[in-house]
Amino acid sequence: MDNIIDGKALAKKVNQETASMVEELHSKEIDPCLAVILVGDDQASHRYVRSKHKKAQQLGIKSIVKELPKETTEKELLNILDEYNNSEEIDAILIQSPLPKHINEKFVMSQINPNKDVDGFQVINSGKLFLNDQSNYPVACTPKGVMTMFDEYNIELKGKKAVVIGRSIIVGRPMAALLINAGAEVTVLNHYVDNMKEYTCDADIVVSATGKLHTLTADDVKEGVVVIDVGQNVDENNKLVGDVDYDSIKEKASYITPVPGGVGPMTIATLMRQTVELAKWSDING
Amino acid sequence: MDNIIDGKALAKKVNQETASMVEELHSKEIDPCLAVILVGDDQASHRYVRSKHKKAQQLGIKSIVKELPKETTEKELLNILDEYNNSEEIDAILIQSPLPKHINEKFVMSQINPNKDVDGFQVINSGKLFLNDQSNYPVACTPKGVMTMFDEYNIELKGKKAVVIGRSIIVGRPMAALLINAGAEVTVLNHYVDNMKEYTCDADIVVSATGKLHTLTADDVKEGVVVIDVGQNVDENNKLVGDVDYDSIKEKASYITPVPGGVGPMTIATLMRQTVELAKWSDING
Repeated sequence: MDNIIDGKALAKKVNQETASMVEELHSKEIDPCLAVILVGDDQASHRYVRSKHKKAQQLGIKSIVKELPKETTEKELLNILDEYNNSEEIDAILIQSPLPKHINEKFVMSQINPNKDVDGFQVINSGKLFLNDQSNYPVACTPKGVMTMFDEYNIELKGKKAVVIGRSIIVGRPMAALLINAGAEVTVLNHYVDNMKEYTCDADIVVSATGKLHTLTADDVKEGVVVIDVGQNVDENNKLVGDVDYDSIKEKASYITPVPGGVGPMTIATLMRQTVELAKWSDING
Repeated sequence: MDNIIDGKALAKKVNQETASMVEELHSKEIDPCLAVILVGDDQASHRYVRSKHKKAQQLGIKSIVKELPKETTEKELLNILDEYNNSEEIDAILIQSPLPKHINEKFVMSQINPNKDVDGFQVINSGKLFLNDQSNYPVACTPKGVMTMFDEYNIELKGKKAVVIGRSIIVGRPMAALLINAGAEVTVLNHYVDNMKEYTCDADIVVSATGKLHTLTADDVKEGVVVIDVGQNVDENNKLVGDVDYDSIKEKASYITPVPGGVGPMTIATLMRQTVELAKWSDING
């Protein structure tokens, strides 16, 4: 167990800290509030939203869940978003993806108030991250949660050779920016790179976000590597697994995240933490 | 000469195309206009601004140069900027760096209208680049000019191993984003990385933006490499040279940019081109 990054335990710790932050804010009459908008009846989305709602309540965060029928028009959705964007009560807004096809998801998402952008996907927040701006702004929760892991396990980043596999807006790109900003030497690979081993075999840190089984085998990494597995895949036995061959790589790695129980719990813990941070920042900025 | 990327010749070609674009816009009664604001009496800055002014005029671009005394207050500068930001006449604004020390340069720069941000440094434009947004927006001129070089010389980027040395806001970061967006496998190095050769020795493409003499020697690169030298340094003989050991690397490289005559002329040609693009985009968007 020594080299396993226990995301579940760390998420619990982060959540405890978040609950304390909430208490402190309550004592100043600040009441952090997350609003989640859910359109349609996608069952997985409903499940995710319920678990976020429950977690927020556990931590003392006010949670609003707006469930809208799948027939909701884009205009109706934008009207609600506009109300939330301007609400003094709401600190953080999350629109659960996917939206029904008749709604322009990209456009709607782009209309979230950047100061309430708890997912950290808005252009202006991404730009700040990319430019290593030192002010307060939200960052994509999954890579931000991974940074908390590095910190908790005292994993040195400065000057280290880090490889990020995948260049999505949600994980790969912000992960790369965070690592660059932390002083690592960072390589960003397309998820379909055909000579992956060439890049990974001497990396100190590998973050895999490909959504592809067996992205890395033990042969692809060096002794002592740190492997962060962002994948959430279902294998042939219908079991939740990550991108990498966990059992064999665990024998070589200095640290590795399991799936489940690694990055996953940290994403939601970071979402909660960031909700509270947004409330705090909004108070500071008036 | 076969393997030399002739930035001077390419800049001439780009400038000719830009002049044609300007003529076409004139025929539609669109009059592209670049405004440069210069504060104080830094001689190098005056020289740069003069050469931009001259180039703009040559290409038919209207050029406004606002020279302000070094005593100008931040408020006075912001008032002028505000006027330019809202002017129907001006399409592109450039504030020549450095500003006098009593002015908060970072803040003033951040107040340029993003739709007139000809340098491409604004957070929102950087964010779009980072997220690979497919709409029209300005991009930092030096790396954008380098992309024009790759295109002109049919240098394939997709799947290639590219290393960018330096992670500045002006060159390294946007260069990396452009290469990632083009499908390359991109490594971003700190300019002070201590084992540079480990990264560069098997790279297909190396972009150096360190501002340090002898950043790369022939031993640091493989046969057939493409080397783009963004450096503008003065050597012990007071001669303008780049970051890399040009003469020896030229023997191994499939392509290399000289200094002078490489990236430099492309930066200013791209600035002119982007001024005209901003005029065009502003016309399209009303």
